[in-house]
Amino acid sequence: MKVIKFGGSSLADSDQIKKVINIVKSDSKRKCIVVSAPGKRNPADTKVTDLLIRYANQAIEHNDFTNTQNAIIDRYQEIANGFGITTEGFSPIKQAIKELPEKKYPNDEYLMAAFKAHGEKLNAQLIAKVLSILGIKARYLDPADVGMIVSNVPDDAQIAPESYCRIAKWKLTEEILVVPGFFAYNSDGDICTFSRGGSDITGSVMARGLDAELYENFTDVDAIFSANPNVVKNPHAIAHMTFREMRELSYAGFSVFHDEALIPAIQGNISVNVRNTNNPDAPGTIISSKIEPNKDYPVRGISASKNFCGLYISKYLLNKEVGFTRKVLNILFKNGVGYEHMPSGIDDITIIMDENNLTPEIEHAIMTELQDAIHPDEMHIIHNYAIVMVVGEGMRNTVGVMARATKSLANAGIRLQMINQGASELSIMFGVSQDDADKAVQALHTEFFKKG
Amino acid sequence: MKVIKFGGSSLADSDQIKKVINIVKSDSKRKCIVVSAPGKRNPADTKVTDLLIRYANQAIEHNDFTNTQNAIIDRYQEIANGFGITTEGFSPIKQAIKELPEKKYPNDEYLMAAFKAHGEKLNAQLIAKVLSILGIKARYLDPADVGMIVSNVPDDAQIAPESYCRIAKWKLTEEILVVPGFFAYNSDGDICTFSRGGSDITGSVMARGLDAELYENFTDVDAIFSANPNVVKNPHAIAHMTFREMRELSYAGFSVFHDEALIPAIQGNISVNVRNTNNPDAPGTIISSKIEPNKDYPVRGISASKNFCGLYISKYLLNKEVGFTRKVLNILFKNGVGYEHMPSGIDDITIIMDENNLTPEIEHAIMTELQDAIHPDEMHIIHNYAIVMVVGEGMRNTVGVMARATKSLANAGIRLQMINQGASELSIMFGVSQDDADKAVQALHTEFFKKG
Repeated sequence: MKVIKFGGSSLADSDQIKKVINIVKSDSKRKCIVVSAPGKRNPADTKVTDLLIRYANQAIEHNDFTNTQNAIIDRYQEIANGFGITTEGFSPIKQAIKELPEKKYPNDEYLMAAFKAHGEKLNAQLIAKVLSILGIKARYLDPADVGMIVSNVPDDAQIAPESYCRIAKWKLTEEILVVPGFFAYNSDGDICTFSRGGSDITGSVMARGLDAELYENFTDVDAIFSANPNVVKNPHAIAHMTFREMRELSYAGFSVFHDEALIPAIQGNISVNVRNTNNPDAPGTIISSKIEPNKDYPVRGISASKNFCGLYISKYLLNKEVGFTRKVLNILFKNGVGYEHMPSGIDDITIIMDENNLTPEIEHAIMTELQDAIHPDEMHIIHNYAIVMVVGEGMRNTVGVMARATKSLANAGIRLQMINQGASELSIMFGVSQDDADKAVQALHTEFFKKG
Repeated sequence: MKVIKFGGSSLADSDQIKKVINIVKSDSKRKCIVVSAPGKRNPADTKVTDLLIRYANQAIEHNDFTNTQNAIIDRYQEIANGFGITTEGFSPIKQAIKELPEKKYPNDEYLMAAFKAHGEKLNAQLIAKVLSILGIKARYLDPADVGMIVSNVPDDAQIAPESYCRIAKWKLTEEILVVPGFFAYNSDGDICTFSRGGSDITGSVMARGLDAELYENFTDVDAIFSANPNVVKNPHAIAHMTFREMRELSYAGFSVFHDEALIPAIQGNISVNVRNTNNPDAPGTIISSKIEPNKDYPVRGISASKNFCGLYISKYLLNKEVGFTRKVLNILFKNGVGYEHMPSGIDDITIIMDENNLTPEIEHAIMTELQDAIHPDEMHIIHNYAIVMVVGEGMRNTVGVMARATKSLANAGIRLQMINQGASELSIMFGVSQDDADKAVQALHTEFFKKG
């Protein structure tokens, strides 16, 4: 059997859901459907999840939420109408939306989680109803019924391992299971959500629990591409990639599939197939644990992310100063700033950080404390820093990939501010100025993907 | 005025010291001579310092030290004979050697320091005497008389900053000052030595204190070369390099000049001239704070050191685990192991360490503690690891150095296990297998130094 998950754009309205129904019907192995909340119908639209967040905030602040409530009801009503669901049939959905502010929650964070979760919950209920109307045996399966238990963090829950054997019991059900994504319950029965975009996680958890032969993740792109199509003209559609490649590329901007959602798939060795609801004939991209390398294409993909900065510290004989790095990391930690990478010379170190974590106040505090604690010869922050990643399992044991990469960057006149490649040899990381990031991706893509 | 320091091979016997006298006489600015202990006269010979260490250990263990004592006396006697110093003139030297075991020391470590220091102390006394005999106005200047105070660590003393203004008072002395290298006294008047090879430090301290126009460091090579002459045929003699370049190159094997000795020179902005006692007409290598870049040669030198190992750790979503690196470094620290460099992927980290610090027991302890503390997906030690350094201030702002370096390595069939270059852009660091290290240096040297 296959677990099949649909993203918000695939479920944005009744027309989209008709495509989903056809996809489900076209393969009898598709026995478990995981659904997101209805997404945007057009670029100017608002996702139901965002409406629910507004609704929750208005409820918390005792503001008038009538318009928001109606806007949410309208979204589901449109879907119900599209499939001829009666007023009576739709009334439980409407009721559930209206009752949300009246229920009791341990605190506002749990309130927020419960409001958000109803985007998926009600959509799954509605779609189960639609399938039944169309004569397809289907049932809504709540995370509570499925036995999915999560940790006690309302907006960033983690799945409890005991969930998997409970899920396994549903493997032989005749009906198609329609499971809402994004949330489950803690041991007290309160709703907790995964991190944003976490319907991918539910799908992956179900796939592992049911030991699915494939986890199909339907979204709105034909495939994962070898580079951002907004930066590189006609990038390659990646037919097959590994979990590790996906993870490395997602670090610097490839956001098709949720990072945390890879974990259950990896643990259960379930291949993931990213596909397009709007073009179901396209084979999409398969992500699995291992694939045969292709010697002609040692690189799988090239990504860039622009939101970094570098803290440069130099001090003569730093290298002989025992505990230096620990001191620096402790000061960063105290100020709530994590580090990403730490390339070093002999007597200098460059600490690459997420620029978003560094307000001017935090920057000032860190610099002052570092000055006092370590007396550097030189210290400064490099803003406008971008990281470009060249990723591919095929780079391992292939001599010359670095030479090709650096040559293409040099030919494009790009100055390398940092280079970092450890023993995994799965990726090469370049630090460049933000202005050079797109040019770097283009140059590298031409080098590794445009043959002959 | 110039401070001029002679290494052990330049003072190994009376023939060598005759060369030293000629060098001193040939430039009237050479007003302060810092001397090492007599070194090896031939490859099979023993340095006086090593004889003194043997002598000290025999004294500590109450073994018979007659032969060792005589061997030391013979070394100085040969020098005295070479310059016609009388038995009476030599007797204080002989006496001092004999009296060493009879003196009181705070403990055996101070005993060892005092024994070792006499290699330099007696040599300086003897050379001052030789100069006087030759009609050159000279005086032996003990570190106690000069006012050089050091910290209380018998075998790794650090100079106290107040020493410099005391040294400055000797600037206008008419006589040539002959100062023994390697040692000074703590505030209790006990002899403490610098780390091994520390006569370079004394020279640099004197040069800074006297505000010398140049610190000449005479040794037994014509210059510092662009690569190890045992690895590369006919490397370039480096005419001029910066302190920072010297430091980076010395990290991986360029050991001509003592690391710590650069500090006073940097602080006082005193240029250092490394020269050859056996070929005093050769201009040697000037090391100074800044030089004009030469566009044809962005790289100053290439070095390699083979005694490293790498600890590879990978764990899915490691990058999101706050405090991960601190945990790892704490475990290393607890086991007395420092780290050298830490290149990283997204979910993996390679910790480069000095192989000499890692006994099988320590390796086992570290691996066990890491396993318990961080539950890695994969972890292993990479032995036989070498670091190759490409160093040059001219690399900064020069696009394409990395491309040339990696291409030459790829053409030589060398697999890069690690690449590390931070924001200083002063050096590039490559991790290769030990077997590839020499080949890597050769390939890089050909690329950057053999033009046309």
